[in-house]
Amino acid sequence: MATDSAIVREVGLRDGLQIIPTFFPTPAKIAWIEAELAAGVRDIEVCSFVPPKNIPQFADALEVTAASLAMPGLRPSALVPNLKGAQRAVAAGVPELHFVLSVSEEHNLRNVQRTTQQSIDEFRAVLELAHSQPTPVRVSAALATALGCTIAGQVDPGRVIELAHVVVDAGADELSLADTVGYANPAQVRAMFDRAQRELGGRVPIAAHFHDTRGLGLANAYAAAEAGIRIFDASLAGLGGCPYAPGASGNIVTEDLVFMLESMGIATGIDLGRLVEVRRIVAENLPDEAMYGQIAKAGPPKGFAQAA
Amino acid sequence: MATDSAIVREVGLRDGLQIIPTFFPTPAKIAWIEAELAAGVRDIEVCSFVPPKNIPQFADALEVTAASLAMPGLRPSALVPNLKGAQRAVAAGVPELHFVLSVSEEHNLRNVQRTTQQSIDEFRAVLELAHSQPTPVRVSAALATALGCTIAGQVDPGRVIELAHVVVDAGADELSLADTVGYANPAQVRAMFDRAQRELGGRVPIAAHFHDTRGLGLANAYAAAEAGIRIFDASLAGLGGCPYAPGASGNIVTEDLVFMLESMGIATGIDLGRLVEVRRIVAENLPDEAMYGQIAKAGPPKGFAQAA
Repeated sequence: MATDSAIVREVGLRDGLQIIPTFFPTPAKIAWIEAELAAGVRDIEVCSFVPPKNIPQFADALEVTAASLAMPGLRPSALVPNLKGAQRAVAAGVPELHFVLSVSEEHNLRNVQRTTQQSIDEFRAVLELAHSQPTPVRVSAALATALGCTIAGQVDPGRVIELAHVVVDAGADELSLADTVGYANPAQVRAMFDRAQRELGGRVPIAAHFHDTRGLGLANAYAAAEAGIRIFDASLAGLGGCPYAPGASGNIVTEDLVFMLESMGIATGIDLGRLVEVRRIVAENLPDEAMYGQIAKAGPPKGFAQAA
Repeated sequence: MATDSAIVREVGLRDGLQIIPTFFPTPAKIAWIEAELAAGVRDIEVCSFVPPKNIPQFADALEVTAASLAMPGLRPSALVPNLKGAQRAVAAGVPELHFVLSVSEEHNLRNVQRTTQQSIDEFRAVLELAHSQPTPVRVSAALATALGCTIAGQVDPGRVIELAHVVVDAGADELSLADTVGYANPAQVRAMFDRAQRELGGRVPIAAHFHDTRGLGLANAYAAAEAGIRIFDASLAGLGGCPYAPGASGNIVTEDLVFMLESMGIATGIDLGRLVEVRRIVAENLPDEAMYGQIAKAGPPKGFAQAA
């Protein structure tokens, strides 16, 4: 029996695909979700409710959502950048919204054309909408650029914690701290998540979102795990990036993260072998994209056993 | 002024090159050493004193050693697999030997055709030779497969610590624990190095040697740093592997390690920008080898400042 477990949330279909101009065919998206679910990945961010004219990749958000809702055992979620997106997502039946606002004012203006304060006001409206549904919709508040910003540079940790309190006080069901552009180092991560966990961990679950832009993604995930974090975003094959943060490419690799956690005795409920096989769907549909990840190449160590 | 510092030891010229059949020209090796020294890397394992018929890459060990000894400020070292190699290295004037023995009996037999006990006996003879020189030669005892073995699978941590005591009691000047085949996870690393540091850290400096075979190399380095380790082996561009451990490729990347440590406020004395430029020498001489590492592609974060 597992004494420790974690949620690994696949965000490749959203954070991975959003920067990729090639349209990933809708049936292939659905096959990807099905295959990951079959491997044991129950938490999948399946799409983004951004205006399709901004990111055509998500023009099929309604179809992908509908298909996801029909998969027993899946806990689908979707990114929403604003109230309008939340309205569309709620109408589509998405049970969990990820509302993103950037701690860095400059990044927020670039990313969603709002000041941070405007995004906070919008977040309150999203919460009101989501929580007033007959079956309340969960809302996670994702604080982007929480560990650095390509425009502003360093981000004040005090400001991150201040905003974290604001969104949790407002009623967020989850707090997510994101190293959107791959700036974080593990000592910084440890300090930040220690503080967030201490001040807010008793009130909401806290998730960690890392990019491997500068090679420290899994070191940062380990540091967050040491701080007690047990919800991690990751992308199959490390797809992903931020369209407004040049050079930021690649979420941490889902397969490698699962391998790390399972090796550490933290059960994910995900079958590593089956998960690695899902890469084929990505490779077939994005033959020109770089596929990251080491465990798919090297295979697990001799005698490797998943946490159970 | 740095409150914390670490030694990053370049092992690319030895662990990196030993698995690569293409002969890296001697002048290019010397240029590589010179360029890393100019970037601030003072600890470089410059070659291996294995029989040249086994690994022709090191047929120029004497020339590389002689050139290294002529570089002011450099602390060159060399791997020696046995007494005969140590005799050659000492005769060449190498001031620091790295004697390797595998904790895994099976791996040791495959790697140096000796039982672990035979290697321990040989290590004592090497120590006697090294320490009886007019200027005593330092000897580091590197315990290979200390965190797993491609032949034996898991390795008993108790056996690692037992052997660590044996080599330190025998008179080793440094203890190095090596994840030779990239099997380690950060929780395992933390526990192993915590114990080594507690039991032996007061007697000898302890070094960590990681491979990134399964993507956890820098997470493991961070875990070791958390355990108080301040000496790390790494290879420029992540070159390297173990010729007798199939699938094991790539030491942790020197540039990414330096970036991680410096970001964490641990000074290495190494100029990251100049270090990244040294990759060019590797690329020019090994055009067909994979070059690993993220910081060389993404560049440092905006506002990045080295620890000082």
